[in-house]
Amino acid sequence: MKVRVHVMLKDGVLDPQGEAVRHALGSLGFSGVDAVRQGKVIELDLEDGTSDETIAEMCEKLLANTVIESYRFETI
Amino acid sequence: MKVRVHVMLKDGVLDPQGEAVRHALGSLGFSGVDAVRQGKVIELDLEDGTSDETIAEMCEKLLANTVIESYRFETI
Repeated sequence: MKVRVHVMLKDGVLDPQGEAVRHALGSLGFSGVDAVRQGKVIELDLEDGTSDETIAEMCEKLLANTVIESYRFETI
Repeated sequence: MKVRVHVMLKDGVLDPQGEAVRHALGSLGFSGVDAVRQGKVIELDLEDGTSDETIAEMCEKLLANTVIESYRFETI
């Protein structure tokens, strides 16, 4: 089974990477870029029947730093 | 308008980050993790009416390294 995990910085957490991208887009001549947030997407090939609890545990223990990041996942 | 850009390594391109995550999940005791691919998700706040061509140009010029990465985007 294939699972896609989205990990983003929580609202309010400064995103220097996103700021750098916004700045770079501006210097490349792209106007109207108000904000940029960058996160991770992780695609997992898991054995069939892996439970949501196990996937959440993977996220909590490794894939996301839950102090500053939030995560969600979907089976694809 | 809000746009979400997904950037992933193209098939066949070695993903050392994904391999490291797979290995780490294994050492944390998670079995049945066959493969892991990691990419970027970039959320852009753009002025209304920004065209798909402009967004694609942002991807081609900055957000994705099109030699080894593929991208897709959606309005959210």
